[in-house]
Amino acid sequence: MSTQGQVITCKAAVAWEPNKPLVIEDVHVAPPQAGEVRVKILFTALCHTDAYTWSGKDPEGLFPCILGHEAAGIVESVGEGVTEVQPGDHVIPCYQAECRECKFCKSGKTNLCGKIRAATGVGVMMNDKKSRFSINGKPIYHFMGTSTFSQYTVVHDVSVAKIDPKAPLEKVCLLGCGVATGLGAVWNTAKVEPGSIVAIFGLGTIGLAVAEGAKAAGASRIIGVDIDSKKFDTAKNFGVTEFVNPKDHDKPIQQVLVDLTDGGVDYSFECIGNVSVMRAALECCHKGWGTSVIIGVAASGQEISTRPFQLVTGRVWKGTAFGGFKSRSQVPWLVDKYMKKEIKIDEYITHNLTLGEINKAFDLLHEGSCLRCVLNTEA
Amino acid sequence: MSTQGQVITCKAAVAWEPNKPLVIEDVHVAPPQAGEVRVKILFTALCHTDAYTWSGKDPEGLFPCILGHEAAGIVESVGEGVTEVQPGDHVIPCYQAECRECKFCKSGKTNLCGKIRAATGVGVMMNDKKSRFSINGKPIYHFMGTSTFSQYTVVHDVSVAKIDPKAPLEKVCLLGCGVATGLGAVWNTAKVEPGSIVAIFGLGTIGLAVAEGAKAAGASRIIGVDIDSKKFDTAKNFGVTEFVNPKDHDKPIQQVLVDLTDGGVDYSFECIGNVSVMRAALECCHKGWGTSVIIGVAASGQEISTRPFQLVTGRVWKGTAFGGFKSRSQVPWLVDKYMKKEIKIDEYITHNLTLGEINKAFDLLHEGSCLRCVLNTEA
Ligand SMILES: NC(=O)c1ccc[n+]([C@@H]2O[C@H](COP(=O)([O-])OP(=O)(O)OC[C@H]3O[C@@H](n4cnc5c(N)ncnc54)[C@H](O)[C@@H]3O)[C@@H](O)[C@H]2O)c1
Ligand SMILES: NC(=O)c1ccc[n+]([C@@H]2O[C@H](COP(=O)([O-])OP(=O)(O)OC[C@H]3O[C@@H](n4cnc5c(N)ncnc54)[C@H](O)[C@@H]3O)[C@@H](O)[C@H]2O)c1
Ligand SMILES: [Zn+2]
Ligand SMILES: [Zn+2]
Ligand SMILES: [Zn+2]
Ligand SMILES: [Zn+2]
Repeated sequence: MSTQGQVITCKAAVAWEPNKPLVIEDVHVAPPQAGEVRVKILFTALCHTDAYTWSGKDPEGLFPCILGHEAAGIVESVGEGVTEVQPGDHVIPCYQAECRECKFCKSGKTNLCGKIRAATGVGVMMNDKKSRFSINGKPIYHFMGTSTFSQYTVVHDVSVAKIDPKAPLEKVCLLGCGVATGLGAVWNTAKVEPGSIVAIFGLGTIGLAVAEGAKAAGASRIIGVDIDSKKFDTAKNFGVTEFVNPKDHDKPIQQVLVDLTDGGVDYSFECIGNVSVMRAALECCHKGWGTSVIIGVAASGQEISTRPFQLVTGRVWKGTAFGGFKSRSQVPWLVDKYMKKEIKIDEYITHNLTLGEINKAFDLLHEGSCLRCVLNTEA
Repeated sequence: MSTQGQVITCKAAVAWEPNKPLVIEDVHVAPPQAGEVRVKILFTALCHTDAYTWSGKDPEGLFPCILGHEAAGIVESVGEGVTEVQPGDHVIPCYQAECRECKFCKSGKTNLCGKIRAATGVGVMMNDKKSRFSINGKPIYHFMGTSTFSQYTVVHDVSVAKIDPKAPLEKVCLLGCGVATGLGAVWNTAKVEPGSIVAIFGLGTIGLAVAEGAKAAGASRIIGVDIDSKKFDTAKNFGVTEFVNPKDHDKPIQQVLVDLTDGGVDYSFECIGNVSVMRAALECCHKGWGTSVIIGVAASGQEISTRPFQLVTGRVWKGTAFGGFKSRSQVPWLVDKYMKKEIKIDEYITHNLTLGEINKAFDLLHEGSCLRCVLNTEA
């Protein structure tokens, strides 16, 4: 029995209010309209951005909503005019859209796409500025244009990457955010060259993916910085060659790194979301050329600072969103790299649970031992 | 009668104390030691860095000293081992050295050179860590490795660019700092492409040189921002196509520029030294790719700030010293460009005075009508 054109009723984890446990509800998912794709989500992981919005600290967070943006699934049906995917295609929803038509997409300088931001920014779909999710007629907001904490979701066609159907969805879902972001920060944003000295602040999933990217780029030293010394054992497997715990030093961490590297690192990456660490990451860079990339997302309203002399003497301060990857074009390429064993994914998955256990998964996110927890939505 | 090997007694403007008028004194200039060059300075201009150190606000300023770093002259004699220049060569002293041997010079990524910084940073020469200037046996500190407010000065051989002897020294002295800095910020640091939209904050010599560089690079719009509306008439001749006075607007200047440019500029340059303008210059950049270059030198201890989201969404924050030009290699090339009429210099010179009138020249520096004042040291 085809569900095409029908409202689907399925399970989803609904965030009714900030900071309150998510509730598994029967949600109505309307059929995709023009330019939209309805996707059956099979696996979804959790990322800190979900936790941040859920916590209520994100001033743009809208409730009730369905969170989730790191997932994989299969196209159930497509709306009018959708040509690039069809029912049965294996896909990864992408919170960074890629329309290939807007000023951003055509610039050749960025992966940010402007086409649907006006809608995704306020939790609705572009076509009618409404949500496709509802419970008893009450609309539930979309989140990041993905809302993957649901057995079915509706996304814009510009936000869905078609991937190799042979790829294991329970693994490649991680390419929807964390792993892709870390790799891309090194390859696209920093463009680390062979022989470079790299410092990574924060050795969670993002930091480890940065390490993996830096190793692949031929970095000669990869210095991991974390306040949790337990992180080092895992980090070694991702390419980190040296470990520094700021708590072991009296000197500011930037000075520790400058001393360790005869003047500073060539590239540094902030993978925490802490504005004072962002400053340290810039200031541990080598005079003349050191480049620091901000990946971590700081709490709303917080600011970064430094002396302008740091920049006048040649350091560069940058940031990255989704690692600079063009989502629809490059996520399939990342999946292929995984299939060819050129990048890791399995090693980031420390926990597997079901959608029904999502609140436990959120708890795990704050535990040092968890990198990524993948939820099976079918269970 | 050759002066080679002799102490030369000549006139120099000595800064005995911060913020007190300079005094023209008879100064003894010792002969150049190994790796040093004694230069007869014919023309020197004034730059804000001279005024900043003179004011006493530079915590690294040392007194008494001989200021000055934007000049041109003729080699009088050379010390042991100096091979690249000889007596009679026309030269521009360069506060950014270029040794071609140190980590910095060999990196291919920066124009900063580390070789003599330990000495120039503390007002002496590398060879014996002493000054070549004295009055009645009392040493007078060097400044920026150049000290051009003197009829004779001694510089390191790595700090002197040999130029075309046909070039008029009373003009090309400006390539020792300001004009080169502005052009290089566009060509080397930002690498502005044809069609770019550029914003320039501050339309003094540096800002006008940025405009000239941006025009040569093919920028489609060059927006000049200054709180002094009188600057616009001159600025037009240097390529500025639009003028914005922040005082004419209630909105923050970054918002004014974002509105004017449908989302922000491609490149912005801060040519003032004001940390809040540095922030505005970053924040008026286009999401996804806008790059802001800090050229202005802020007062000691002041800091720049912004929200990290500005960088995470693709803006890049940089700075430049001497416009990224490798001094010995590229100053001669700039001189040649001037000789071929490919870059302006004459138009920046609004005043001509003598070394004896240097205090008047410092007063002029703070007047809106003065770009560069060139002093004839012989008068
Ligand atoms: N820019 C993007 O596109 C993008 C995408 C995904 C995630 N993120 C952000 O990246 C950041 C990291 O994500 P994650 O999943 O790897 O997080 P995580 O919590 O798993 O890892 C953070 C690590 O930082 C360490 N840490 C905390 N404070 C520290 C300090 N002061 N000094 C050193 N180490 C410290 C922790 O011990 C932990 O190991 C988050 O802010 C997340 O929101 C950004
Ligand atoms: N990085 C380097 O290598 C380097 C080299 C030379 C000079 N500099 C620095 O560049 C800066 C500019 O030098 P200059 O000689 O052109 O100075 P200048 O004083 O001639 O020009 C500054 C201009 O900025 C304008 N201005 C002041 N406050 C403003 C504001 N809030 N908003 C907009 N405009 C404002 C002034 O009206 C003036 O036109 C100085 O800080 C100088 O020290 C840096
Ligand atoms: Zn994420
Ligand atoms: Zn687009
Ligand atoms: Zn100067
Ligand atoms: Zn050098």
